[in-house]
Amino acid sequence: MPHETVAVIGGGPAGLAAAQAASDLGAPVVLIEQGDALGGTPIAESYASLTPHLESAETVLGRLVQRLEASPHTDILLGAQVTACTGDVGHFELQVEMGATSRTVSCGAVVLATGFQHFDPGRETQMYGYYEFPDVIALQDLEAMIKAGSIAKPSNGQAPRRLCFVQCVGSRDRQIGNEYCSKVCCGVASKEAIEVRLLLPECEVFIFYIDMRMYGYWESQIYWPAQERHHVQYVKGIISEVLPKGDQLLVRGEDTTMGRPMEILMDMVVLSVGMEPSPGTRAMAGVLGVEQNSYGFIAAAHPPLDTVSTSRPGIFAAGAALGPADLEDCASTGAAAAARAVSVIRSVPAAG
Amino acid sequence: MPHETVAVIGGGPAGLAAAQAASDLGAPVVLIEQGDALGGTPIAESYASLTPHLESAETVLGRLVQRLEASPHTDILLGAQVTACTGDVGHFELQVEMGATSRTVSCGAVVLATGFQHFDPGRETQMYGYYEFPDVIALQDLEAMIKAGSIAKPSNGQAPRRLCFVQCVGSRDRQIGNEYCSKVCCGVASKEAIEVRLLLPECEVFIFYIDMRMYGYWESQIYWPAQERHHVQYVKGIISEVLPKGDQLLVRGEDTTMGRPMEILMDMVVLSVGMEPSPGTRAMAGVLGVEQNSYGFIAAAHPPLDTVSTSRPGIFAAGAALGPADLEDCASTGAAAAARAVSVIRSVPAAG
Repeated sequence: MPHETVAVIGGGPAGLAAAQAASDLGAPVVLIEQGDALGGTPIAESYASLTPHLESAETVLGRLVQRLEASPHTDILLGAQVTACTGDVGHFELQVEMGATSRTVSCGAVVLATGFQHFDPGRETQMYGYYEFPDVIALQDLEAMIKAGSIAKPSNGQAPRRLCFVQCVGSRDRQIGNEYCSKVCCGVASKEAIEVRLLLPECEVFIFYIDMRMYGYWESQIYWPAQERHHVQYVKGIISEVLPKGDQLLVRGEDTTMGRPMEILMDMVVLSVGMEPSPGTRAMAGVLGVEQNSYGFIAAAHPPLDTVSTSRPGIFAAGAALGPADLEDCASTGAAAAARAVSVIRSVPAAG
Repeated sequence: MPHETVAVIGGGPAGLAAAQAASDLGAPVVLIEQGDALGGTPIAESYASLTPHLESAETVLGRLVQRLEASPHTDILLGAQVTACTGDVGHFELQVEMGATSRTVSCGAVVLATGFQHFDPGRETQMYGYYEFPDVIALQDLEAMIKAGSIAKPSNGQAPRRLCFVQCVGSRDRQIGNEYCSKVCCGVASKEAIEVRLLLPECEVFIFYIDMRMYGYWESQIYWPAQERHHVQYVKGIISEVLPKGDQLLVRGEDTTMGRPMEILMDMVVLSVGMEPSPGTRAMAGVLGVEQNSYGFIAAAHPPLDTVSTSRPGIFAAGAALGPADLEDCASTGAAAAARAVSVIRSVPAAG
């Protein structure tokens, strides 16, 4: 008999969606999360709110966690690392280390939902001064300030009067090896820009961009209100460097629309850092023996109309482990991967 | 006892994904398609190939159809229209008209996958002359030419030497009521541009755009090769009108990057028309009693982390019926909707 259990690795939005969908389909589920809480990056990195409706990340993800915790036959392992995987579809054995103890999880299929990490803006993009100048921060740093309800210059605690976002930091960039677009940074920066305007109505907010990739409903849900209601100022331009000037920052680049060099003083600069595979995604690719693409994300084996199969039968992937993904992508691929995991277990011959 | 069957309405990419996933989960499936073949818009509109790998649409969708046809407990109704829906989750009765006959489909849950239609570029955007000038065509018209292996000016049968795409026709446009971005047109136009360059290496190809929304891997898979390998010329600009000039077309607008008016002669103009709800999506919203958003697409009831629930319990939606969607979205939401449909049926109390 195959093992009935679906193992889900990673407790962020995609992993929660996968675990819930598998549980709803009647499968026993073991959710394995390396951190000490569920919710994934939005919780671990103190996101204030989610695109596109600006709902509290804690509230929305908390609701998902509560629902999963109340689901039958669902075992949640926190502080847990998968260190080995043996066996085959229908008959996997995962070695799971939890502090000093270890246990074996027998499962028929695995959903890999180990997500992304934010691009480190110190790596080869020192022209923006993320580690040199305290008032240069990244999207997730501003997210935490918004969550705390207080946006202030780290250098002196004062409210900024001019703040800008620099898009595509660590994305669309051959030099650093990330040729892909990280998909969500335009939407996230615009959402945060709206939140800055709401918290600090006196603060001017600029977004320097190459293309504003507000695809689908983000155009009408976020981009138009950002401009029309909240007066966020979008400037098509390339920022080449950020320098200190007094207690401000001099942002230098080219205004592409006006076709001229641009120098503009800011109190705070927010780097819209892209997505890279998380250490967990890289590690699990090795442990589970599934192929990665050239960027280190899990390779989808049969795109575009099979979004969740990996190179190894019985192992499926979901969410940002597969590459740049928005929350809807995580929810949909999580559930899709769970459906595949449950199906594949039930189709393994009893004698298998 | 609830009815075990999942009814899927619509046989395009999302509907095929939903039907396959439900069948794989062991549910009896009835797939109801109003046309006389499965495959949806890519087949009905003679798409040559799919983003991002340029695989034959017929081959890829044909493979999905074959697999579904070979699945057990799967009933495919072609030329079939749902005209009424009574009952409740677990116990729906769909009235289905098939030519002169009609039948009742008893099902526990429904997946609505009735898709989109291409924006009609005659509607309130006559400045592009779609119905006046034969050499002004739309994305799907060029798709059919590429599939036939022959790109020629409809006016005289000659190969074009200069061809351009005009982006955002029927999208991002308040005047016509479509404020949303149609998500896929940047990728589809770029894919077609590559195909034109491959079929007609002498033909110069231009894309006039507001923002190139090549999100995620499309950036590296389509956008960079289009520019670097195939020398497609991207021009940020707004096209205000298309006029006949001799046997060519005069394209007038503004080159936003150069900040100056632009007039350029083309042999063919391709309008990158956006997505609107299909007549089937609008009709089924009424028949099934599910809420639509302000654009007429099916409203997701609990976004962003539940992508497939509608306002009516037991009725789920997938693919472009929910709004602009790429093929990955269709595959993922199709499977996610099927998982929810199967789960909800199995959770209905036997006495219910």
